[in-house]
Amino acid sequence: MDKLDDALAATECSAYLLYASSADADFRYLTGFQVSDPLLYLKKRGEAGMLVVPQMEYERAATESSAVPVTRAESGFLKFLDEEKDPWRALARTAVSLAGGGRVMVPKAFPYWLGKLLEEQTGVVADEHGVVRSMRAVKTSRELAAIRAAQQATETAMDVGISMIRRSTPKNGVLYFDDAPLTSGRVRTAMHAYLMERGYTARDTIVSCGKETAMPHRQGDGPLLENEPVVIDLFPQHDATGYHADMTRTVVKGEPSPEIAEMHAAVCEAVDLGESLIVAGVEGSAVHNAVVALFKEKGYESENKGFIHSLGHGVGLDVHEGPSLSPSGGPLEAGNVVTVEPGLYYPGIGGVRVENMGAVTQSGFDRFTAYTRDLIL
Amino acid sequence: MDKLDDALAATECSAYLLYASSADADFRYLTGFQVSDPLLYLKKRGEAGMLVVPQMEYERAATESSAVPVTRAESGFLKFLDEEKDPWRALARTAVSLAGGGRVMVPKAFPYWLGKLLEEQTGVVADEHGVVRSMRAVKTSRELAAIRAAQQATETAMDVGISMIRRSTPKNGVLYFDDAPLTSGRVRTAMHAYLMERGYTARDTIVSCGKETAMPHRQGDGPLLENEPVVIDLFPQHDATGYHADMTRTVVKGEPSPEIAEMHAAVCEAVDLGESLIVAGVEGSAVHNAVVALFKEKGYESENKGFIHSLGHGVGLDVHEGPSLSPSGGPLEAGNVVTVEPGLYYPGIGGVRVENMGAVTQSGFDRFTAYTRDLIL
Repeated sequence: MDKLDDALAATECSAYLLYASSADADFRYLTGFQVSDPLLYLKKRGEAGMLVVPQMEYERAATESSAVPVTRAESGFLKFLDEEKDPWRALARTAVSLAGGGRVMVPKAFPYWLGKLLEEQTGVVADEHGVVRSMRAVKTSRELAAIRAAQQATETAMDVGISMIRRSTPKNGVLYFDDAPLTSGRVRTAMHAYLMERGYTARDTIVSCGKETAMPHRQGDGPLLENEPVVIDLFPQHDATGYHADMTRTVVKGEPSPEIAEMHAAVCEAVDLGESLIVAGVEGSAVHNAVVALFKEKGYESENKGFIHSLGHGVGLDVHEGPSLSPSGGPLEAGNVVTVEPGLYYPGIGGVRVENMGAVTQSGFDRFTAYTRDLIL
Repeated sequence: MDKLDDALAATECSAYLLYASSADADFRYLTGFQVSDPLLYLKKRGEAGMLVVPQMEYERAATESSAVPVTRAESGFLKFLDEEKDPWRALARTAVSLAGGGRVMVPKAFPYWLGKLLEEQTGVVADEHGVVRSMRAVKTSRELAAIRAAQQATETAMDVGISMIRRSTPKNGVLYFDDAPLTSGRVRTAMHAYLMERGYTARDTIVSCGKETAMPHRQGDGPLLENEPVVIDLFPQHDATGYHADMTRTVVKGEPSPEIAEMHAAVCEAVDLGESLIVAGVEGSAVHNAVVALFKEKGYESENKGFIHSLGHGVGLDVHEGPSLSPSGGPLEAGNVVTVEPGLYYPGIGGVRVENMGAVTQSGFDRFTAYTRDLIL
């Protein structure tokens, strides 16, 4: 919390405010509380954070949250609501009163309307540098352990999916498993079920096949095909801790086209290059640009088609967070957890992506991912 | 979209803006697009909505979104980014340029920082009345069908969970199922697995037991107990449509305490009363207050303990949305989908909640929930 206190001191603010639910990673990071409706969080300089909760959540917050719960009645909210007849205005008055009247700092994503109401009563400073996001980007050993565990569960789940494809039988170009066409949905459900039993929730998992793999975020549906690339991108969240892993593999049951085989070899080389360059102090942009240069050398574009996304991103309570391995990526720090996920996408041919994840250290990249990258099953 | 055009006309704005991902129900409602990173959405008066997407999402957005996709390059974003070197400033310039320079309307939850940057270039009007939220509150027949289908899946999943409790065997006060203690986690996982196979994702499901049921949102863990209330609150979302259902039952394996049995009878009476009062035109507050009065008549409080939450809420792309059956609830409209979920909570004794869901019509309440409310298994 020292970093947050420093940011408050530097901007002469007396408190940092959030109005969010635990779907907001900053909120979950600062409160450790799981709640689906937004709550007011307020941290004064040098003090522990406070969480304003309805009466019905008080006992649970006292048990489960790292912030100090205050009921709506205690916080003054109910009195202000009675006077204002508007929950937003009552929230703004509660925040200003709890902050003791001084200027307040809010994240960039703070609700605009609440910010405007706060402005009527006090100074409001947007946290331009994203102090909580930057705190979140450097993981503690406990967070690293949670992400490493998530990655292990993810690899085993990935293996559940890939094993189904490996054990399938092609009939007229379509893969069959247990006497029925093996669809994207069946592979996804098997992986999700495996993860669920272990306390993880996976959403929006990609199992795309054939020409549609040229769309990097296409979720995929329908039967999987022989001799065509299958891209599986899986990024579950641990229900209890909230931490994610993120992993992609591309596989072919049968014989890939020469283009896909060459793209896969180039992508694996790009993964190796990216991982070899990562170390505390290096710029994320430098790692990204080195991969662009490697692809160029091999005759692959990186505009409109070819390598059309960033090389990687941080992973934590959000599946996409800082730092960034992209043209605008700044310096990496020890304790960052990042993906390395080069991909090549050509409409009419298909796409290939391979994604590993690991921690940035003082001496290099501590890869968490141990699963094979083999293309052909 | 007429309502949105009317709101723009009334405030003399030329466009409505969102910057959100599909985790935001307004975004999903207006774009029909599933995406995990935030995108800029802009709807000009009298025109279809536009969605600014990275190159890699263009083809998918063209196929899957109801909004018209525009790439970052086409929108001017990449040029602005090159000039500004800051994605937020580039976003603000893109929005103003796409809006044609006129005033813009943004939702209350719009990012504060982006709002401030917009203010530097044009007028910004906060959508104080929540026009998209109010559009979402009145469901089309297609939306009603999606929610009804979600409710049917939810009831069958609920039955999977309750059947495990019914078929369990008590040993020294603990329920056993398949030779192992029947835990909250096992019941939750069985229901989640059932739902997942059918394309639904359930999160934060409550399976609480015994004294902890006095905390309405306690998720619950550990073995379930004989003669103690088990509260199951399940609110899955359909992956493909995004619509939710919401349902709660309280059951006891064995003999409930007289207090719990009486609380359950009172809660069922409150459900019946609430459902009987719902009809287009009635105030949500009137329905809530009638239930408070019924409980009072029976000797139950509604402050600090007893009935300590609102009677119900709208359900749709968000599990909690408008309208509200609470002290501040306004008039109900035909096409609203609401829960009716009275509960009583007494520390040291436990809690009871029963929750149904259905549609508000011109003639009353069209209950979607058909599952038994029986307390004793």
